[in-house]
Amino acid sequence: MSHANTSRRSDCPIAYSLELIGDAWSLLIIRDIVFAGKHTFGEFLASGEGIARNILANRLARLEAEGLIVKKPHPSDGRKDWYAATEAGLELIPVLLELSKWGARREPETAETIRWLEELGLDRENLIQYLRDKALAKK
Amino acid sequence: MSHANTSRRSDCPIAYSLELIGDAWSLLIIRDIVFAGKHTFGEFLASGEGIARNILANRLARLEAEGLIVKKPHPSDGRKDWYAATEAGLELIPVLLELSKWGARREPETAETIRWLEELGLDRENLIQYLRDKALAKK
Repeated sequence: MSHANTSRRSDCPIAYSLELIGDAWSLLIIRDIVFAGKHTFGEFLASGEGIARNILANRLARLEAEGLIVKKPHPSDGRKDWYAATEAGLELIPVLLELSKWGARREPETAETIRWLEELGLDRENLIQYLRDKALAKK
Repeated sequence: MSHANTSRRSDCPIAYSLELIGDAWSLLIIRDIVFAGKHTFGEFLASGEGIARNILANRLARLEAEGLIVKKPHPSDGRKDWYAATEAGLELIPVLLELSKWGARREPETAETIRWLEELGLDRENLIQYLRDKALAKK
């Protein structure tokens, strides 16, 4: 799976990342997989931000085309697809962690939803590893 | 300066951050200020991604309204505005660093433009501090 769909418009790796990731909806799908253990269309659709069905379908296809997620048959329900993060998707964990720290600092109410991360008492590297392992664990 | 313009749609700090930041253009303006030492409309306009004037004007106003940048009189040219990062803007440095590492890993050509960061030989915390100090330095 390559990211051939994305023609690089800049030499800057930040701009390149933002192009490849797409938009906020795409990052929230990666968040759902990595932080919330969600794997199906219905689970993503039910997330608090209220993504529309057509936008969700579009972003899933785009993330798959860019190689950030992979679609597999659902392990127990043949009518559903099952989405998992690829290595490239998992490598976005540090980006998501920094975004979560930044948001939690700006709006303390949102800090509640990441309290469990702090309560793990892990340093940065081990926290990233913990989230990777969690995302890779089979249901 | 508050971020009263952004009504929080989710309890998730990642979603909240993405709402507050806005979009890729907004992050690229923060990048221009922090990594490239740019401070004026003309300097942002000249960046490699080719932002349109109206989008740039809109994102500058939005970033200012959200308290991520502040507009001051230009120190030497009264016809120009001079934009600097606020503390909230500077706290996006770790997000930008993670995005730059992620992009550079995916597309080695883009790694060239952040070689100077590696060559500083600083650990993560000192690199963040270095970039903060750099962004705060007066012209």
